[in-house]
Formats: sequence, C-alpha cells, structure tokens
Amino acid sequence: MKKVQRLFEIDPWRIRTTQLDKENRRLQESLTSIGNGYMGMRGNFEETYSGDHHQGTYLAGIWYPDKTRVGWWKNGYPEYFGKVINALDFIQMKLFVNDREIDLAVMDIEDFDLELNMQNGVLTRTFIVTIDHAKIRFTFERFLSVVKKELAVIRLTVECLIGEAELKVVSKLDNNVQNEDSNYEEMFWLEKGRGHQEDISFLTTQTVPNNFGIEQFSVTGAMQHISSSIGLQQDDTLEVAETFTYALKANQTIQLEKRVVVLTSRDVPETEQSEKAIALLTDYATTYEDLLAEQNEAWANRWALADVLIGGDDEAQQGIRFNIFQLFSTYYGEDERLNIGPKGFTGEKYGGATYWDTEAYAVPMYLGISDPNVTKNLLKYRHNQLPQAQHNARQQGLNGALYPMVTFTGVECHNEWEITFEEIHRNGAIAHAIYNYTTYTGDESYIQKEGLEVLTEIARFWADRVHYSKRQQKYMIHGVTGPNEYENNINNNWYTNYLASWVLSYTLENYQKYQAQTTVSISAEEQAKWQDIIDHMYFPTDEELGIFVQHDTFLDKDLMPVSDLSPEDRPLNQNWSWDKILRSCFIKQADVLQGIYFFGDQFTLEEKRKNFEFYEPMTVHESSLSPSIHAILAAELGLTDKSMEMYQRTARLDLDNYNNDTDDGLHITSMTGSWLAIVQGFAQMKTNTGTLSFAPLLPKEWDHYSFHINYRGRLLAVSVNQKEVQIDLKDGAALAMMLYEKEIILSDTITVPLEQEESNV
Amino acid sequence: MKKVQRLFEIDPWRIRTTQLDKENRRLQESLTSIGNGYMGMRGNFEETYSGDHHQGTYLAGIWYPDKTRVGWWKNGYPEYFGKVINALDFIQMKLFVNDREIDLAVMDIEDFDLELNMQNGVLTRTFIVTIDHAKIRFTFERFLSVVKKELAVIRLTVECLIGEAELKVVSKLDNNVQNEDSNYEEMFWLEKGRGHQEDISFLTTQTVPNNFGIEQFSVTGAMQHISSSIGLQQDDTLEVAETFTYALKANQTIQLEKRVVVLTSRDVPETEQSEKAIALLTDYATTYEDLLAEQNEAWANRWALADVLIGGDDEAQQGIRFNIFQLFSTYYGEDERLNIGPKGFTGEKYGGATYWDTEAYAVPMYLGISDPNVTKNLLKYRHNQLPQAQHNARQQGLNGALYPMVTFTGVECHNEWEITFEEIHRNGAIAHAIYNYTTYTGDESYIQKEGLEVLTEIARFWADRVHYSKRQQKYMIHGVTGPNEYENNINNNWYTNYLASWVLSYTLENYQKYQAQTTVSISAEEQAKWQDIIDHMYFPTDEELGIFVQHDTFLDKDLMPVSDLSPEDRPLNQNWSWDKILRSCFIKQADVLQGIYFFGDQFTLEEKRKNFEFYEPMTVHESSLSPSIHAILAAELGLTDKSMEMYQRTARLDLDNYNNDTDDGLHITSMTGSWLAIVQGFAQMKTNTGTLSFAPLLPKEWDHYSFHINYRGRLLAVSVNQKEVQIDLKDGAALAMMLYEKEIILSDTITVPLEQEESNV
Repeated sequence: MKKVQRLFEIDPWRIRTTQLDKENRRLQESLTSIGNGYMGMRGNFEETYSGDHHQGTYLAGIWYPDKTRVGWWKNGYPEYFGKVINALDFIQMKLFVNDREIDLAVMDIEDFDLELNMQNGVLTRTFIVTIDHAKIRFTFERFLSVVKKELAVIRLTVECLIGEAELKVVSKLDNNVQNEDSNYEEMFWLEKGRGHQEDISFLTTQTVPNNFGIEQFSVTGAMQHISSSIGLQQDDTLEVAETFTYALKANQTIQLEKRVVVLTSRDVPETEQSEKAIALLTDYATTYEDLLAEQNEAWANRWALADVLIGGDDEAQQGIRFNIFQLFSTYYGEDERLNIGPKGFTGEKYGGATYWDTEAYAVPMYLGISDPNVTKNLLKYRHNQLPQAQHNARQQGLNGALYPMVTFTGVECHNEWEITFEEIHRNGAIAHAIYNYTTYTGDESYIQKEGLEVLTEIARFWADRVHYSKRQQKYMIHGVTGPNEYENNINNNWYTNYLASWVLSYTLENYQKYQAQTTVSISAEEQAKWQDIIDHMYFPTDEELGIFVQHDTFLDKDLMPVSDLSPEDRPLNQNWSWDKILRSCFIKQADVLQGIYFFGDQFTLEEKRKNFEFYEPMTVHESSLSPSIHAILAAELGLTDKSMEMYQRTARLDLDNYNNDTDDGLHITSMTGSWLAIVQGFAQMKTNTGTLSFAPLLPKEWDHYSFHINYRGRLLAVSVNQKEVQIDLKDGAALAMMLYEKEIILSDTITVPLEQEESNV
Repeated sequence: MKKVQRLFEIDPWRIRTTQLDKENRRLQESLTSIGNGYMGMRGNFEETYSGDHHQGTYLAGIWYPDKTRVGWWKNGYPEYFGKVINALDFIQMKLFVNDREIDLAVMDIEDFDLELNMQNGVLTRTFIVTIDHAKIRFTFERFLSVVKKELAVIRLTVECLIGEAELKVVSKLDNNVQNEDSNYEEMFWLEKGRGHQEDISFLTTQTVPNNFGIEQFSVTGAMQHISSSIGLQQDDTLEVAETFTYALKANQTIQLEKRVVVLTSRDVPETEQSEKAIALLTDYATTYEDLLAEQNEAWANRWALADVLIGGDDEAQQGIRFNIFQLFSTYYGEDERLNIGPKGFTGEKYGGATYWDTEAYAVPMYLGISDPNVTKNLLKYRHNQLPQAQHNARQQGLNGALYPMVTFTGVECHNEWEITFEEIHRNGAIAHAIYNYTTYTGDESYIQKEGLEVLTEIARFWADRVHYSKRQQKYMIHGVTGPNEYENNINNNWYTNYLASWVLSYTLENYQKYQAQTTVSISAEEQAKWQDIIDHMYFPTDEELGIFVQHDTFLDKDLMPVSDLSPEDRPLNQNWSWDKILRSCFIKQADVLQGIYFFGDQFTLEEKRKNFEFYEPMTVHESSLSPSIHAILAAELGLTDKSMEMYQRTARLDLDNYNNDTDDGLHITSMTGSWLAIVQGFAQMKTNTGTLSFAPLLPKEWDHYSFHINYRGRLLAVSVNQKEVQIDLKDGAALAMMLYEKEIILSDTITVPLEQEESNV
C-alpha cells in the first residue's frame, strides 16, 4: 500500500546512485546532506545547477527571528518565529569550458556517479561532459572535518579524456542566499567586510537587524585554494570570488582544492573573525590526504561504539547506518548551547532548534551510544532556558514553566493556537528526560540541583493548568492537543493527564528525597495541593475494552481500522480536508501508546496488549515519530512482523521517502527511532527501574544483529543470532542485570539461547 | 463595569459633536459614515488630514480576491479572501489659504461642528481658521443621493469673516488608495483612462488582474464643479484634479459645489462608462436645493414606515435611529446581487459581502419594515450561489451544500480551520431564513421552488456530516464551532445538532407538501435515512439542571458567572490568551439560547427560563450579535431590567463603542438587534406559527414606544404607553391575530390595557 521512492542503491555503507534525477533533485540533495555538528549543507552541486533544487547551507546556532505571519491573530501568539537561516554558500565552484558554463540541468552528461560514504562523511560526485569535441571528467570530493570543525574541504579533479579545452573555475563565498520559508520574502544578511590576503579571500556578513532584541550574528568565511593556476579576484555584493583558468590537454589531469574556514560570532567576535580565519587556514596547511586521514580515523572511532551490525538484510543495515550517520553529523554533543533541530543541516522547514523530539526520541539513544555528558548537555540546555519557559507560562496566565514547542532561546516561537497553547504534553517530555537520564546513568547529581528546579516549575505549571470538575469531582485538563496531532483541542487526553500527574508525583518524591541538597522550596500547602491533584486526577478509561481512552469523546467516533481506507486517501494529511482528519478516528502517531512506552514498567503486559491492539490498527503513522514507538511495543508483545514493518518505516523513512516530504530535508530527530527499535525493541533493553535488562528476539528476516551500549561506566557488546544471545562486558566493573527476566551478573561474557515467542494480533 | 466611550451628543435625530477628537478620529469617522446602498464612505474630511485616520470609500459589489495568508496551511483552505476594497476617493477637496494647506490635525481652529443628520443623510462640518490675520469659516455639506444612486454631492461654503486672503481648492478624483487589511500590501487598482469634457473630468480605473478567475471590475468617477472660478486641470497617476482659486475679501462668501457620478462595470461596460457618467451629470443639472429636497423626501418616506418612537429616553431613541439609518444606508433591497456585509461601507475589516448575520439578524427586521421582495432578494442571493455552496461541501469531501462563512461569490473565503470547516451551523441559518420568510409573509411560492432546492442540498450536507456512534447508538456531529466562538472544535453542540435535525425535518415536510410543484427529487431511501437521523439524533441535555447542554463536556468546565471576573479581565478577547478563553465557561454570544430564540414556539417557558438562567450569567456578550437575542428572551421571561440592559448594548453598541472596536467600522449586520429587541423583545411579536402575536411590555425607563410593521399585505402601527397597548390597522384587510395570548380580529384600532408582570432572576 505504501508508495516507496528509493533513489539510491542498497549498500551497507554507501548512499550511491548513477542517476541524476532532475525530477527529484531536492530529494537527492536531502539524502546527500553532510554536516559536522558545527555546520552542514544539503547535497548541492558546487557548480551551477539551473534546475529545481534547494541551495542550503546552515550554521549551528545561527538564526533569525522572522516576524510572525498568521491569517488571524490570537492573543498570546509569539511575535516572531525563529528560523534556521540559509547561510554563506561556500561550496560554490562554477565551471566553464571554452566559456560555456557547465550546468547538469541542461547538459548531456555521461558516467554520472554520486556517492556519500557513511564511513567518513565524504561526498563524491563525478561526471563526464563533452564540449567542442573535448571529453572531460569532473570529480568533486567534499567533506566537513569532524576534527577541525570550522574547516570544509573540496577537491576538484578534472581529467581531459579526449581533445583540448580551456577550463575556467570561478570559486566563491556567496552570501546572496535566502530562506525559502521566509515569512515576508526578506533577505536575512548584510555585508560587513571583505578582503584578500595572499592566497586567502574572506567575506564577513551579519544577520540584518530585528525588532525583537535578538542578537545579530556575524559570520566570516575564508577560502584558500591549492592550484597550479593563480586566482583572479572578482567581487560582487555579498560575495567574493576567485577565478582559475587552465588549458586542458588530452590525458591531462588537474586538481583544484578549496579549503574554507567558517567562524561565527557565537565563538569569535566579529572584529577578530577574519584574522582568526586566516590564521586557522594557515595552521591547517597540510595535505588533503592528511586531512582525510584524520577524518577517517575520527569517524572510525564514532562507528566503533555506535555501529549496529545487521546480518542478512542490507536494506535494514543501510537504514540504521544512514540514521546514525546523519544524527552524528547534526549533533555529537560537543556544544551544550546547541540542540537537535528537526531537519538538522538538511533543510529549513519547521524552523527552530528544539522540539520535544530531543527529549523523547534523541535522549534515549544518546544515553546508549555516547558519553553521559552529551545527554547532560541536552538537559542543561533546558535548564538554561528555564526563565524563558516561565515567561511562556506567564503568557498563558499560568504559574510555573512551559517549555516551548519550537524555540531557539526558550521563548515560544510557534504560532498555531492548537499547538502553541495546547500541545502542552511537551512539558512532560522535558521532565521525563530527567527521569530517563537519572535511571539510565544512576547519576543523581543533576536531579538534585538543576533537575529539581526544572521539575518543580513544570509541576507548578500542571498544578495551575488543571481545573476541578465539580460534577465529576476530579481534576481535569481541558483544551489540549496530544501527540496525535490529528486531533486538536480535546479534553482529558489520557497521555497528557498521565504525564501531568506523573510529573507531580515524581517531583514531590524527589523533592522529599533531596530536600537537603536542593535550593528549591515547595510549601506544605503546595505539596498538599499537588497530592490532591495526584489523588483525584481523571483518567479516561474503558473497563469493557480494557483500554485507556485517548480523550473524553474518542469512543463516540466512527471507529474503523486504517485497513478500511482506500489507498487514494493516504496519506490523509495530503488528501483530506483538515476537519475530516480531526473528526476521524485515525491517529497520526503514538498517543496513549506513547505513555505506555514512556512508563513501560507501570503497566501490565495485558494492558499493553489491549491498548496496542485497539490503537495501532487506527494509526496511520504519518508522523516520522510514530513507527519506532510501535516497533518497540510490538516487539515486547512478540508481534515481530508488525515490529519489523515498523522498523523498516523508521529506518528507511527518508531513504525510501515514506512520508513523501524528504525533499524538504531529513527527519533528523526521528532518526533515533531505528536504533531504539533495535535496542529497546528487538533486544528489549529496559532501564526505567534502575536495573538494566534485555530480552532479545530476532526478526526472521535477519541472521543476526549486534550493537554496543554504554551503561553506568561500562561498555557492553550485545549480539543476537538465530541460536543465542551474547553479552560481552568490554569495559568496566561487573554488573548485576536481567536477561530474559532472570537476574545475572555480567562479569565478562554471558551467552544464553535465544528465547522467542511468536504472537499474532 | 463596561467602559463607555461616547464621542457624540445625545440627540434624537442628529449625530453631532463640537469636538475634533484627534485621538479618536477613526471612531469619529466610523460614526459619521454615510451610504446609499450603492456606495458609501467613512466620515473622512474632504481636505487633507495628516493625523491618524482611515480613508475609506467603498462601492457595493466591487471587491478583490486577495491571496490567502496563513501561518500554517491546512488542507482545504480557500485560495483567496474576498475583500471589500477601498475605492476611488472622490470627496477630496484640498484647501490652501495663501498657499498654506489647511490640515486640522496640526492647525488651531475655532467653532468646530460636525453633524450627521439622520433625517436626510446629510453630513455637515464647519470650522474657522485664522491665517495671516484672515479669519475664515469653512462649511462642507455632503450627501449620497438615495434617489440618484450614482450621485454624490458636496457643497463647500467659505465665509471670510475678517481680513482677506487667497483661497485655492484642489478637487480630485483620487484612486491612489489601498486596503489597510491587504494581505501582501498590494495595490488593487490600475488606471484605464481619463479625460475632461467641458467642466467635467473623469477617471476610469480597474482592479488589478488576479489568479483566481475573478472578474476585474472597472469604475469610472466623473466630477463637475459649480463655481465662480474656472477649474485648472492638473493630473497625476491614478488621479485627476481641478484647481479653483478665489480672492477672498472680508464678509464675502463663496460656494463651490462638487458633483460626482460613479459608475461600475457591474452595471455599465467600461467602454461606455465615461460617456454615461457625463450624460448623467448633465441630466442632473438642477440646483443643490432641488437635489436636497428629493433626498429629504426619500428619507422621509423611509422613516415613515421604519421609525421607532421612544418616549422619555433620548439615548435609546438616538440608538435605534442610528442603527436603522446605517442599515438603510447599507442596504435597502434594491439590488438582488447584493447582500449586507458586516461593516457595510464603514470599514474593511472581516472582508466578504455575506455572513450568516444576514439570515439570522437582518432578515427578521427587513421582513418587518420593508417590502417582502427585499427579503426575497436576500434569499435569492443564496439560491443563486447554490452551485458554489455545493463546491464548498465537496472541498470537505461531503455531499450537499455548505454555505460559506465569508464570501462574495458563494465560494468560501475564510481561512481559519475552526471557523471555515467547523462553524457550520451557518448552514442552518440559511434554511431558517426560508422558514422565517414563509411563516412571516405566508408566501409559499419561494419555498416550493428555489427554497426547496436550497433546503434539500443543505439537508444532504447534514445527512452526510453526522456520524453514527455505535457506543451511544445515536447520530452525532463532532468537530464544530457553535455561535459561541469562544469554544472551538467541540462535539455535539446542542444548537448545531438541533438545527441539523430541524433542517432534515423541515425539508422532508416541505418536500412531501410540495412534491407536485418541485423539481427536486429525494429518493425513498434518502428520506428514510433522514428520518433515521431525525429519530436518533443526539442532543446533550441535563435533566437535573433542566437545560440543553452547550456541548458534550461543557458541564465539566469550571463553571462560574461573569460577575466573578475582575474588570481588568474584560473584554476577555483582549486580555486572555486564546486557550484560556477556550477552556473557560464564558460564552461570547447566544448559543443554546440562539436555538431557543430561533424556534421559540418549540420550547416551554420553563425550558426557556432554565436555560436563560443557566447560560446568560456566563455570557460576556463580546459579539455584537449577542445582546439582542438576550434582550428578546429576557423580555419574554419578564426580566425587563436585563432586557433593557441588553437593549442598550445593542442599540448603542457603536455610539458608545461598547466593544472598543468601532474605529474599524460599524457593526452593520448586528444593528438590526435594537429593532428586534423592541419589536420581538419588548413588544413580544411572534410570527413562527403563521399567526401574528404581540404581548407588549414597557421598560420602566420609557414613557412609551411605537413602531410600524408590514405583515402579509397590511400596515400595522403598534404603540405602547404606561397604560395601554394600541394597534392600528393602517392599511390592508382585517387580520386574526393574538394579543396577550388572546385571539383578536384587527379591523381598525384595538386598544387594551398594558399587562406587565415583573420577574427577577
């Protein structure tokens, strides 16, 4: 039923195609994006491409507050929407053969080859053009250094296969770039300076002024070329350019290497940027091969911990690696001022730097495969924004703190009432990440201090946001949007009510536990009020069906399974009028099931089964965040086929363009889903109770799979094949843990037979 | 508690002030708007005014499809929003004394007087300026002819009281005008032609092209001046101008009369416009006094039927006259292609030509005080737009017809999902107007033909829009917004469900009754389906409280009266975050009570009382449509104080700027409310059952009141004083009717004692 659009070959380590797909250049660009956490870009061509495409380079933390655009203003809407902005295009290298410009959109070419190597993040492209009887092969190699984060390297190799021709390369730093999603078609950049020093050219730009008191960011790009030709300078507004010319002869090969350093005012004051950039380029004076070697080594180290091996299923193998590769390209935890935006460096859509995706989906994976400080930095990011979250709550006339739907600074940027004001479950996810970090790492230092400050303010928000229904004698939460954004403004969303009540309990419990350590003060009266809410919170349930009810009137809907829909209705969000979606029973992503996933230890297997069997058949999975949660729960219920179907959707969501929107950029924050589906799903890793446990199963499509995790100062290797499960303690002290519900002490290697029960809904 | 802002004196026939209120010029402008159904304008000054104000001239039926602007696109949103457009500014007469421009925003003036005479629609303004020791009085008189609809007349009288000076008047037709609410700050006009012929100048303009297939309208304005000076022509882009100069001496008076004819492509093809305009101006060659005399007479005829006399309360008297005056200035039923926009010719806000206000609020008054054909034209307007209403339903994937929230052509223009897709009760109001017309006039010719076509398609919409709840074994309507727009996306709004069910019943009943006459065909199967819906429609009710419940979960809210709010919270829509408004119990306008008003004969007095007592105290009346319905029901329940409070709010809503937004324009469509409050409220006129009945009461603040109504070919005069009620049959055959629940035969005059029972909630 699902239409799959697969542009690249199946290959365990490479994203490769020999087709220039002009109809789908945007999709190709998204899928060949590269990044190093500091900067990144879509897979744009260096030379001119006049066909439909989306030129996009992005710098972490460099944004602009774009004046809000709405049809009908509602009280409380934010004044601006923070946008990831399209920044300096520094890869540009225009090509001219006998003064005819190379443009793959309109020229006949041969031997096109485009390849992103996920082992080292190098993007290579090659093609042959024939002009005036000269046959010439061009090869571009490009990478963003993960060792020298400010450095980008591009190497152009030109082989004249037949004939002769004059080649001209015009290499630029070009800041004439605009956001496609700019609200008022404004240009966000102005020029601040430019210059040339020996073989280095630089350009300094700044974001234009704004009316919202947001800092203007400055950016300097400096470029240096290594070439047999001498660059001829030639500048224009917001750009600097150098032109290199070559007389090509048959069988001759020339190379032109472009190195770019990009500095921003987040790290270096504008006045020092050009000097510092020139100094860095000078420092980095080594060979391309040396720079590539350190790149290879750094990526090899990342993969050594993070790689997941899957035997017997190259599609699945490519999918998980692509996701981890793109996540690490977006965020590797080096800068606590940063977070993980929904499109990373691969597009502009959705704006903002932070969604609840980080806490709900990214934190669990980063806990497993990176240093605990990476996750702690993500938590601290929210703690730093606590004053702004308090501001957001005040905007709604409420106490405490409300973390935003979309933000850069912590101040809410979203402007759609049913989301901005009502999708407040996000506030619970912030609290849940503190719980997740604490139970996973065992580190109580964060919750005692910053953690309790954040939890208390979130709890205060919930305590003020509930109201008491005299009729039902229960506390209720009206007017919310749950994770299922295909319903809006509903009452008593079970997930939201559960989270709110849990936040109050968890905060009270930890306040009482760490009262000696914390500076937080919660009066006895306030504690009593919270306890009263906890004791009398309303949770919609249906005893007969044995389910938690999504919200007050969900069961009055015309209930039917997704399988009753005809294919032309799908995806609903592209085919149905919004009101029809809203009043239908169809669910965009896990909602009740998201709560059951978050608090897996608080529900019986029977409760999980009944809810899964009730809700999953009505779920259309039209959010990228949906399949992973269902994969995990299905695995726990022994529904391996369903789990595998969901794994495939999460792992190859972008590679197979499942949601038909990857042309806008990759679904970065949901990419953790494939890792979670394997580790928390197939391997059934659980950590909520403070004891690590596994109960692996093996999908029948796979021969084996294996992965590493960090856990409380230890490094574990888990591998599962058709016969056995093996866990190796690679590093750290012996660990008491659970395997297939039995307690074991892991001191070096434990091998047990695979236990697998098939179940079918 | 309510802040009242009263800029004009209390006077039974005049809207007058001697204060130039620069802080509130926009409000003054709104309140001194004039119109003749064909064209109209805000009370702008003829000469330059550099202070804050809103220049606005509007021509009936001349509009532009402005490209939709939203923050987040939802499937099904319309592509454009039809805007009433700011058109040719033809009143402009710039004044220069010794080459210094007169500008009241910056000059000291004496004896300012501004007066709108509601007896004849003449706006007069006078003021004295002293420049270079010359003291000069300027007087402008302006009216739009209700006899010669294309004609506007402005007379400037200048008296030199002391000294001497040179006076220059630059009189223009100026189409350099823009809408303040343009979505993309676009200019909607381009020039098509201009010319001068003897003492007449003309300018032809056209709306700019659009991408939505909407016709481009052409407009020609022609002006002629009657003056002792010769006009000097001087043109510029989109404007033509003539300059008149005078050497003023002490005690000398000069007059300059400007006559303008405006033609549009709605009536005259562009190529014929200038010729026709010149011919009309030539035809109209008579004195100012003659033109004024016919204006006086025409307005006197209107007032003879429509005037409501109130004794002992000049505020109330001024209020009702102002409303009737502005309504008739907007619409007097002469053109069936037109409807009644929410701001008439007094502003731009809300756009569109037609809201459900016309059917719910305007039809009942026009039935009473104008020819039945006026109302029939309003009904035909909707019948003409049936294909577009079918289109709107298809956009939502539904059968039948959905009349739009806002429109010019019948195609929906609104773009806010909770309104566009969900405030569908509007569709019931269209049906109700057919019922209202038929029961009031007794004319069955409309319902047999056009009426049944419209009813059937509306019924088909409802039959498709309901869904069956298997759990409750009832038909339900989920995801609607009721008349109370302070709740969105609610389930089973009692009012909507009741209307939907009534439409199905009423359509079935009339289909069966007129099967011989109609071309409509409704299959037996379809009829059975409708009957099943009628028989099993779900109506939320609370037996204990004895009320109809606004929607499914209303009673779970934190219920409290408006009197518990602190004054700084009011109005809520300017002080509370939108989500807080939505989840509060506070009601913007009659919702359940709107249904009880519409179908007053279907509920017991006890039901009315219980619902009124439950809902009114939670109602903030922040819609201009709210007070009138409450005034009517309060009167029926004998709550005269409450009824009087509500009457005052509806009658003086704009004059006292109750909602703090009259600067944007007058609330034209809700202006009928004051007439309804008197006639259907205090006099308790009822017509639903086909028998006319009255049961008058007299507010204690009033000595007496009286009014006329048309009823089934008769003219009745009703007057009520502290002792008696008198009904005169002024014209037509004797009539069996009800008075104080007793059957009477009205053949000439009937006088009965006033019966009045006071009741208090």
